Amino acid sequence: MSLLIKNGRIITATDAYVADILVEGETIRAIGKDLPFSADETIDATDLLVFPGGIDPHVHLDMPFMGTFSSDTHETGTRAALHGGTTTVIDFVLQKQGHSLKEALADWNSRARGTAVGDYSFHMAVTDFNENTRAEIKEMIENEGVTSFKTFMAYKGALMIDDRQMVALMQEVKKQGGMVTVHATNGDVIDYLVAKHRAEGKLAPLYHYLSQPEMTEAEASGRFADMADYTGCPAYIVHLTCEGALNSVRNATRRNQKLFVETCIQYLILDASLYEDDFEGAKWVMSPPLREKKDQTTLWAGINQGLVQVVATDHCPFRWEQKLMGKDDFSKIPNGHPAIENRMELLYSEGVHTGKITLNKYVEVACTNPAKIFGLFPKKGTIAVGSDADLVLFNPTEKHTISAKTHHMHVDYSAYEGWEITGKVKTVLLRGKVAIDQGNCLVEKGYGKFIKRNKVSGTI
Amino acid sequence: MSLLIKNGRIITATDAYVADILVEGETIRAIGKDLPFSADETIDATDLLVFPGGIDPHVHLDMPFMGTFSSDTHETGTRAALHGGTTTVIDFVLQKQGHSLKEALADWNSRARGTAVGDYSFHMAVTDFNENTRAEIKEMIENEGVTSFKTFMAYKGALMIDDRQMVALMQEVKKQGGMVTVHATNGDVIDYLVAKHRAEGKLAPLYHYLSQPEMTEAEASGRFADMADYTGCPAYIVHLTCEGALNSVRNATRRNQKLFVETCIQYLILDASLYEDDFEGAKWVMSPPLREKKDQTTLWAGINQGLVQVVATDHCPFRWEQKLMGKDDFSKIPNGHPAIENRMELLYSEGVHTGKITLNKYVEVACTNPAKIFGLFPKKGTIAVGSDADLVLFNPTEKHTISAKTHHMHVDYSAYEGWEITGKVKTVLLRGKVAIDQGNCLVEKGYGKFIKRNKVSGTI
Amino acid sequence: MSLLIKNGRIITATDAYVADILVEGETIRAIGKDLPFSADETIDATDLLVFPGGIDPHVHLDMPFMGTFSSDTHETGTRAALHGGTTTVIDFVLQKQGHSLKEALADWNSRARGTAVGDYSFHMAVTDFNENTRAEIKEMIENEGVTSFKTFMAYKGALMIDDRQMVALMQEVKKQGGMVTVHATNGDVIDYLVAKHRAEGKLAPLYHYLSQPEMTEAEASGRFADMADYTGCPAYIVHLTCEGALNSVRNATRRNQKLFVETCIQYLILDASLYEDDFEGAKWVMSPPLREKKDQTTLWAGINQGLVQVVATDHCPFRWEQKLMGKDDFSKIPNGHPAIENRMELLYSEGVHTGKITLNKYVEVACTNPAKIFGLFPKKGTIAVGSDADLVLFNPTEKHTISAKTHHMHVDYSAYEGWEITGKVKTVLLRGKVAIDQGNCLVEKGYGKFIKRNKVSGTI
Amino acid sequence: MSLLIKNGRIITATDAYVADILVEGETIRAIGKDLPFSADETIDATDLLVFPGGIDPHVHLDMPFMGTFSSDTHETGTRAALHGGTTTVIDFVLQKQGHSLKEALADWNSRARGTAVGDYSFHMAVTDFNENTRAEIKEMIENEGVTSFKTFMAYKGALMIDDRQMVALMQEVKKQGGMVTVHATNGDVIDYLVAKHRAEGKLAPLYHYLSQPEMTEAEASGRFADMADYTGCPAYIVHLTCEGALNSVRNATRRNQKLFVETCIQYLILDASLYEDDFEGAKWVMSPPLREKKDQTTLWAGINQGLVQVVATDHCPFRWEQKLMGKDDFSKIPNGHPAIENRMELLYSEGVHTGKITLNKYVEVACTNPAKIFGLFPKKGTIAVGSDADLVLFNPTEKHTISAKTHHMHVDYSAYEGWEITGKVKTVLLRGKVAIDQGNCLVEKGYGKFIKRNKVSGTI
Repeated sequence: MSLLIKNGRIITATDAYVADILVEGETIRAIGKDLPFSADETIDATDLLVFPGGIDPHVHLDMPFMGTFSSDTHETGTRAALHGGTTTVIDFVLQKQGHSLKEALADWNSRARGTAVGDYSFHMAVTDFNENTRAEIKEMIENEGVTSFKTFMAYKGALMIDDRQMVALMQEVKKQGGMVTVHATNGDVIDYLVAKHRAEGKLAPLYHYLSQPEMTEAEASGRFADMADYTGCPAYIVHLTCEGALNSVRNATRRNQKLFVETCIQYLILDASLYEDDFEGAKWVMSPPLREKKDQTTLWAGINQGLVQVVATDHCPFRWEQKLMGKDDFSKIPNGHPAIENRMELLYSEGVHTGKITLNKYVEVACTNPAKIFGLFPKKGTIAVGSDADLVLFNPTEKHTISAKTHHMHVDYSAYEGWEITGKVKTVLLRGKVAIDQGNCLVEKGYGKFIKRNKVSGTI
Repeated sequence: MSLLIKNGRIITATDAYVADILVEGETIRAIGKDLPFSADETIDATDLLVFPGGIDPHVHLDMPFMGTFSSDTHETGTRAALHGGTTTVIDFVLQKQGHSLKEALADWNSRARGTAVGDYSFHMAVTDFNENTRAEIKEMIENEGVTSFKTFMAYKGALMIDDRQMVALMQEVKKQGGMVTVHATNGDVIDYLVAKHRAEGKLAPLYHYLSQPEMTEAEASGRFADMADYTGCPAYIVHLTCEGALNSVRNATRRNQKLFVETCIQYLILDASLYEDDFEGAKWVMSPPLREKKDQTTLWAGINQGLVQVVATDHCPFRWEQKLMGKDDFSKIPNGHPAIENRMELLYSEGVHTGKITLNKYVEVACTNPAKIFGLFPKKGTIAVGSDADLVLFNPTEKHTISAKTHHMHVDYSAYEGWEITGKVKTVLLRGKVAIDQGNCLVEKGYGKFIKRNKVSGTI
Repeated sequence: MSLLIKNGRIITATDAYVADILVEGETIRAIGKDLPFSADETIDATDLLVFPGGIDPHVHLDMPFMGTFSSDTHETGTRAALHGGTTTVIDFVLQKQGHSLKEALADWNSRARGTAVGDYSFHMAVTDFNENTRAEIKEMIENEGVTSFKTFMAYKGALMIDDRQMVALMQEVKKQGGMVTVHATNGDVIDYLVAKHRAEGKLAPLYHYLSQPEMTEAEASGRFADMADYTGCPAYIVHLTCEGALNSVRNATRRNQKLFVETCIQYLILDASLYEDDFEGAKWVMSPPLREKKDQTTLWAGINQGLVQVVATDHCPFRWEQKLMGKDDFSKIPNGHPAIENRMELLYSEGVHTGKITLNKYVEVACTNPAKIFGLFPKKGTIAVGSDADLVLFNPTEKHTISAKTHHMHVDYSAYEGWEITGKVKTVLLRGKVAIDQGNCLVEKGYGKFIKRNKVSGTI
Repeated sequence: MSLLIKNGRIITATDAYVADILVEGETIRAIGKDLPFSADETIDATDLLVFPGGIDPHVHLDMPFMGTFSSDTHETGTRAALHGGTTTVIDFVLQKQGHSLKEALADWNSRARGTAVGDYSFHMAVTDFNENTRAEIKEMIENEGVTSFKTFMAYKGALMIDDRQMVALMQEVKKQGGMVTVHATNGDVIDYLVAKHRAEGKLAPLYHYLSQPEMTEAEASGRFADMADYTGCPAYIVHLTCEGALNSVRNATRRNQKLFVETCIQYLILDASLYEDDFEGAKWVMSPPLREKKDQTTLWAGINQGLVQVVATDHCPFRWEQKLMGKDDFSKIPNGHPAIENRMELLYSEGVHTGKITLNKYVEVACTNPAKIFGLFPKKGTIAVGSDADLVLFNPTEKHTISAKTHHMHVDYSAYEGWEITGKVKTVLLRGKVAIDQGNCLVEKGYGKFIKRNKVSGTI
């Protein structure tokens, strides 16, 4: 099978030029002007941008959490991702405390294999680091292609590890060639504030926000940076949301430290005023919560400063009936919001179209850096000869409006309902095959492959 | 004319893959596996790396300075650059105080046009900003393709402008779409220390070093950053050498500021111990001077943190007889050292080969970022369809030794004499033509073209 | 002559206790409970606070400036100071560029000697540092008792010295046992903004404010700190007004540097909103200008952090007719405002009464630190056996209102008109003599003595 | 009873002057020149300095720890303190996890009452904060005169509280008018490193040091500062030892925060090279451990910057046989060293005599600030009318040598054996009574009183 994409404006993290792309089988064979190849199929990409397939390195599909499951399965989630131009996602396997990593991986495999529509990989969340777990790190990296290990500094008793486990984990992961990632908020302080607000009868979603003040994130980010610097372990902060936390990273640059930082699309464009309206705010109950306008400014600046390398989603949708579990108590609202389908278009519209970031930076943070940082590169994350033909044909001028009525995520509200977008995904290729065209999904459940990842390092 | 480069490992700031490159005329037509084109010429690049032609954005050719001229003309300098894998240089036109920018440009044009072997462009050094000069900024940018304006915070009475001129210049340059660059050291303090050392009979090259302490650079870098932040003008610090100065830039990140930072190859690998031996140190008398080991560590870290975007040379060679002008007085030693030919190989050997930076980062700081920051991109600085076929075929394992006996710069000593290098430039293409092959220069004086540059912004 | 002050609550920078004070001649002989001395005179201080006489280390009396003279002479100024509880002031002698320090000192002596009512001393403003001036530094310190040297980083062509002179001056002053103080704003940038606003027809007092943005002070404060650190010279920043500048000092603590910082009462309690009303704002045209609320918060915090050691006034009054010189051009409004009489009461009312600072801190910043830092201690600045009996009996609960109608400064408006004060100066002793009682001045013109000061160091 | 001290040079945190002091009963009645009082006793203090009695706010007497007791009882410890010029100590009551504060206080009272020779007060170490404990805070402050609450961020399972408890405690303590103090090191990380070193057979005292790297203290100090800033609780860091930790405090000044910082005499003058010699290093096994020379420099600077307010000892002696418990395992060496008797003389000799700090600063950090910060002032900590006549007559020029042979602490080695001292305590008064004279203790066991302390605030 061969496919020729003609005359698109190809955008990588570095380049921008008009050319043809010849796809053979699953990969890119050639790129050039007026390529003299004949192909089984030809797509005219004149006036379209051609991006690498988006990579969302932070999603939670079919995840057991707070007594329920996030509402997108690997099938619905990866299909929605494809609709939005994201061809690969990295999902989180969660070790159960008292159990092994292997068990957790088997559990996740049992749900994802054969169901995913788009490609996927796994982070391993280490929630109980002990001598048994230690022995599994090498195996995960070398045999399973799971090279990044997520930690939680919050959710005590469920997911949180303490600093002793953190340092021990870092030393082992460094030794084996992996990376430690972190949900960096001070869980103890948050638990206190949650309990205090509840004891005072403050039960609305607003108190979810007020229970996770900026300090809790700034502190934990700094503490994580300290431990990463001490151990020398490659390190990555997920969903960084605020000025205080980014300043912890900026401070760390003074000791010549390199940390990777991810923010999520919602923290760039939404703010905490959404929590003001009674229970409606439950739609955006996530951790960390949305922040202030000043934090948005800081995060956009951080991207251009090169200090924030990735824009993900932390996609973790819950249907309204699930959100209602916390109707009378914010602490029972399942945490998370749907965004897997919207990230690429929102970031283009609010970032590139407004002039906040360049096209190259867009591809860098949404496609290339996630691939490089997490060992998917060069198979994924770029448009280059030999790489997977994961491509997004994008009309940069078409306007449309986000709505739950038209989205493909398995959730009955949109966190961005009515948001007007400039720029639209037209066609998406996954490993050489047209997966999405004009809003239709042309690949089946099970088309998505698990992607083993390479060893990683602290530089890219 | 067409040329096919087979099987090289192509390295861009983002990508790394093995493929063929088809060059037609001056530009790249196609890149792919087993390209089915026939070409007038074919080069086998198996086992070689293929880099974009290096861009050295900081060189001084045939420059009148301290009563003499830097010893490389545009001919010898750009030819030596080509030998070392640098296909484009940006030279500095120096306004004479009391005269116009246009006069200066005409003067430089008269020496460079028809003599350069490699491609070149010009920065304009504004040494006297007044209402007449203001009116010339727009013309320089729009008509002459000179879009960056160099300033000196040192060399009072010759090159230095004061902060009043600086802010005024920044506001005008910002308005017209250019960038202000700076030699950021506190000239007043340096003048004082030079005079003091001379008055005390301290006349050896060591006192050149001791007259420019880290503080003078840290201070001026911070002051420049303050003014750039106030005006919002795109800003770039040339030849940053030390921890104190980089910390000024790091501090500026806290107010969401983006500054571009260049260091030079010598600051990454040489240190001030070279000044200890009597007059021998004159070889490395340059401004700022070489620094300490700790500063080298900081600069390498700065590159990986994304806070240092460019590695240049500040190439400004003087023959030994010229250096001898300061035999009895360090302040009369012409400032500068030869490096234009050595940068690409030294940075590969000391940066990539030792594992300090990745191959992609190498191309980014030596080729792509200079092009992007200064408006040469995408014509220069990358390997992409439609870009100039400026290419370096590089053997990453070949070992050799630097020596004045074998270099091509017009200077009778090497600043890196005896330095053992891993990695060697084999073949260099400039605009589709083989310019260097196996140590021979195959293009003539005058082959080098002046490259007009585009407007620039503070982000890339 | 002896005098017994009974039962006052004595406040020093350290202590607070009720006791009697026995004054003999000009100094304090004893302090105790129920002192069994008989005295020529007895004052009942029950329910009153007894402070050391205030020291205002930053006043400009009878100063030639901008084509006129500040409107308080040494007579009217020191008398008004006494009314407000300030018994000693340090005035600024201004070297004329091209002239000697000695000439300037003689000039000031000719106006102050025999006219001052309260005690006074002199700083020497060095506006032209050269080899002649260098030779005078030692003489000033050792013979004249002038141990602090003021510099201006602004007012180019009139008062400003450049960084070369600054470093040279610092090295000499350090050697001789003195201190360098600074008006730290970037004069070049301010000159540019003034000229720009004038060229644009922006002539109201508001543009005085907008011509001296926070950056100009933050930058210069940092630059001064850098030079002080390099030279090791004892250093003091006068009238620091804003967060940016204090952060420059905070940054300097990281390299173990100690700097002294003075703010003025107006920057603690007034803000730039006063410039909004047309020409009325001329009353507060001073340099640096008033700042924002956030800066007030920072300055109060700085006092409690121990990073701001002194609260002065920069008293430099001009009558309304003088201010009108700038009616059509803000740059012609004489800079300065009247405060010498109000400082002690305002700082008590707004600082102590509101709970922002303790009584001890009040005495520390208004009396003791100025004396210690500038070599007046222990003669001045405290209540201790052997020290001058400069004492203020203060009713902490009496309320009154500031008005030009009742003040004693030679200026026809009050910068604090209508300001309601809690706490009132009742009686003031200067060298054992009742100088002020119930609003009446009981000492004559000429009672004030010139106080030679001791050598100083960078620690107290 | 009355006592007249003639002609001493009286030093307070502010003043320095020669005068007589009249003591009546337990307090100071008068200070003056040639006081005309007759007294029951007269001491000639000509050529002597007269300091306020030293206050050591950090001592552990008769403390159960690591299976043994610190070897000084309240009797031997306070007697040794008196010999060294320290008249009041603040000892730590340790709550047992699962038990009440009241029980702990009763326990400590049972050992201290009737045995102390010098005056003492108690901090309460809260090791288990829960609803019961919360209710006791108010009682401790209002009824028991225990107004400061010590917390441990290390020693998990024994003394450590987590951040949840910390924030909850801070909010309660702030409400009731107390202060939270902290042992700020990251216990989890230290536990990990201890376990790791032991598992690797690294058992010498050196590994005690290597198990508590600077990072563990810098991190915890910053985290504590974050929580104190969030809650607004008055806060104090005990035994801060290093640059990294002080930089955490310096960073906090940027958000206008005020923290109190204590260092201890050993961190100012000893360094980690003492751990190099096999088991001899056990003498200085304490937590945090001794640090580097650079840290000493930083701490002295911090004192002069006003950012370190107190110099204490963390006196916690163990006899050699007790230290031997850890002969084969550093983790079993009881932590602590003897210094209660040496602090005042060491600080004078190494601080004042060498010129690092002034006499006033000496009294400030060793006497006055501890009293003010912890609510003992003005009863203790100064020389003022009405204050307790706790006085130290000190010969500033007498030289002597520290030795276990001559010290009075109940421990058979000196941590400063052979240290040559300039300056010697001659006579010590405690509440008007001569307690020490020429090396003899003239007061009995039980003379020491428990001192209730006042409410405190975050400013002094």
